[in-house]
Amino acid sequence: MSQDNQDSHGHSSCCGGHHHPAGGGKLRPGEGGADLGGPADSPITVEVTRGTMVESIHRARACIVDAAGHVLARWGDIEAPVYARSAIKSLQAIPLVETGALDAFALGDEELALACSSHNGEARHTGLARAWAERVGLSVGDYECGAQVPYDPETAADLLRRGEAPTAFHNNCSGKHTGFLTTAMHKGERLKGYVRYGHPVQQRILGVLEQMTGQDLSGAPWGIDGCSIPTIGIPLGAIAYAMARIADPIDLPDARAEAVTRIARAWGGHPFLIAGTGTFDTAVMEAAEGAVLVKGGAEGVGCAVIPDQGIGIALKIEDGAARAREVAMAALIRATGALSDAQWARVPDLLTVPLLNRAGTRVGELRPAAGWPR
Amino acid sequence: MSQDNQDSHGHSSCCGGHHHPAGGGKLRPGEGGADLGGPADSPITVEVTRGTMVESIHRARACIVDAAGHVLARWGDIEAPVYARSAIKSLQAIPLVETGALDAFALGDEELALACSSHNGEARHTGLARAWAERVGLSVGDYECGAQVPYDPETAADLLRRGEAPTAFHNNCSGKHTGFLTTAMHKGERLKGYVRYGHPVQQRILGVLEQMTGQDLSGAPWGIDGCSIPTIGIPLGAIAYAMARIADPIDLPDARAEAVTRIARAWGGHPFLIAGTGTFDTAVMEAAEGAVLVKGGAEGVGCAVIPDQGIGIALKIEDGAARAREVAMAALIRATGALSDAQWARVPDLLTVPLLNRAGTRVGELRPAAGWPR
Repeated sequence: MSQDNQDSHGHSSCCGGHHHPAGGGKLRPGEGGADLGGPADSPITVEVTRGTMVESIHRARACIVDAAGHVLARWGDIEAPVYARSAIKSLQAIPLVETGALDAFALGDEELALACSSHNGEARHTGLARAWAERVGLSVGDYECGAQVPYDPETAADLLRRGEAPTAFHNNCSGKHTGFLTTAMHKGERLKGYVRYGHPVQQRILGVLEQMTGQDLSGAPWGIDGCSIPTIGIPLGAIAYAMARIADPIDLPDARAEAVTRIARAWGGHPFLIAGTGTFDTAVMEAAEGAVLVKGGAEGVGCAVIPDQGIGIALKIEDGAARAREVAMAALIRATGALSDAQWARVPDLLTVPLLNRAGTRVGELRPAAGWPR
Repeated sequence: MSQDNQDSHGHSSCCGGHHHPAGGGKLRPGEGGADLGGPADSPITVEVTRGTMVESIHRARACIVDAAGHVLARWGDIEAPVYARSAIKSLQAIPLVETGALDAFALGDEELALACSSHNGEARHTGLARAWAERVGLSVGDYECGAQVPYDPETAADLLRRGEAPTAFHNNCSGKHTGFLTTAMHKGERLKGYVRYGHPVQQRILGVLEQMTGQDLSGAPWGIDGCSIPTIGIPLGAIAYAMARIADPIDLPDARAEAVTRIARAWGGHPFLIAGTGTFDTAVMEAAEGAVLVKGGAEGVGCAVIPDQGIGIALKIEDGAARAREVAMAALIRATGALSDAQWARVPDLLTVPLLNRAGTRVGELRPAAGWPR
């Protein structure tokens, strides 16, 4: 697909729109992105200042796409594959709804939100995961994600003080894994090995990812995620396209449209369950009051959904830094206008992040460099 | 200084050699670096793989310089200022020796090593810092570095289990600060405010940095470090030059040559005190058996000294990542041939770092990308 191959809106098409082309379409900046986007070889940067100097910089690739596959804005290469890691837990949760497993076990939006979460391992997260596991009939030994010290420092310290070891329930992915196990149990599949590429649980997700991203992923690069499931290399533009289809599922088959609508409601409706105390994702979504769904992943990948605008955002920090992913995502969400100035005023430290030293002195900041949309 | 302006060795001069030019010389790749160096606009990269794909990359600027200021190898811009942070604690320790404070309080190589350290806060580190403070007559309230949870996870967990709060002695910079306070006490200066730019302690260090780097730093960019002292922006090439002068102090005034020789002996002779259990710096120096002195700093800056070759190394990871700083430093040290194959064989995971997930599965690695010297 060339730059000339634009549709009647003057935008270029991303990922073949509703079709399913092998390898996906070639992503080009559309005219509609003229005010927001840059040339394909220009990532945008986040800078880390200290005193009178920029000390470090992070490079970001990013794009904003609509549900018809139009690329509204882009920075850097958005065709190269990216491991979306935990940023697409919303997509990985689709089978939990579509197979009927969620309803069969009388589970609700809270469990669905936890399936989409990278949680802090706080009591509310682990309590919900344990109660869900109990209802379904799962035991901690069924989980193949590994144990993890909770992200939340207070919770981690409490565990240590009580002399308790973290379990799989504390793993930030325990909701997702409970969802996988619930789906396998509902379908009568063996639980053992549910994290493996060839297991029906993962193959079902691969099919969902192909349909939602419009990509043939059968030959896509893949690796093993922190929680032991496969993570698939997908072009950044196609990841944003899938997010846009959550925002606006009009072209999805009915069952899938219904599933992503429930997922969006759970995701946006339970900011705390998605991450937890002191986290970027929870803070943005609490401020946004439903206007934005956002989810970060490891190695600097982030996704967002703006339901009212029918658009999706995906970004990848070249070096994988979470601190830059958060600043970049805040800047992109701000550029969409999804939050009002009053809403941003509740979370000013997300747009420009103060850096404090050990004595609590403000010594610098993280901020978008020049050239970002404002 | 242009590329033509080379001395009789065919190398270009770094930082004006023994002179003290305002702003320093313009650093150019010398002929001697033809086998090692790249063009000025080509940083080298560290890649992070997962499964079948490179997931993230880190860009490094780096150079290898000798004590005459010849740039033997360079990658990327080595003239732009860099905050050397804790990587130059060896230089910041010079006044502790030169003023006679170290000898006046009958302190030795262990205390001097601790002054050069970013330690883990393990019992041996904090015990030594406390004993030193007691000998000099300092109390914890004199320290202006702030308290810090020890880097060493076991030590941090032990503190929590005992319900104890970390103190300034646990701060990774407590040795450096004890050195500052010892020097101020020896000189009869007020202790309060010893971290401030204008205090004699910091002004003395600024003078040392100017002399050792051959730079006029009076107008240099500066900021406040994690431990509240000033950190000064210095061209990367000039930082490497200062390290080379520790390796080969022949052109330094006698008192300074003696001081850096003692510092080098303490630094290389006490690898554990410099960092601690499980750290890169300690592991490299233990394997090197005195052949390399190495020290990392925050935001991806690293320095090394190869005494037998009379050379210094400095590097800066663009994005500030410690994981990349370690891989890059290992690759550069390897390129110098300072360690034998047998020595590297004791620490193979430093050259190519395995990435394990939460279940302990090897899912990828950190490694120098193509194009590095081997």
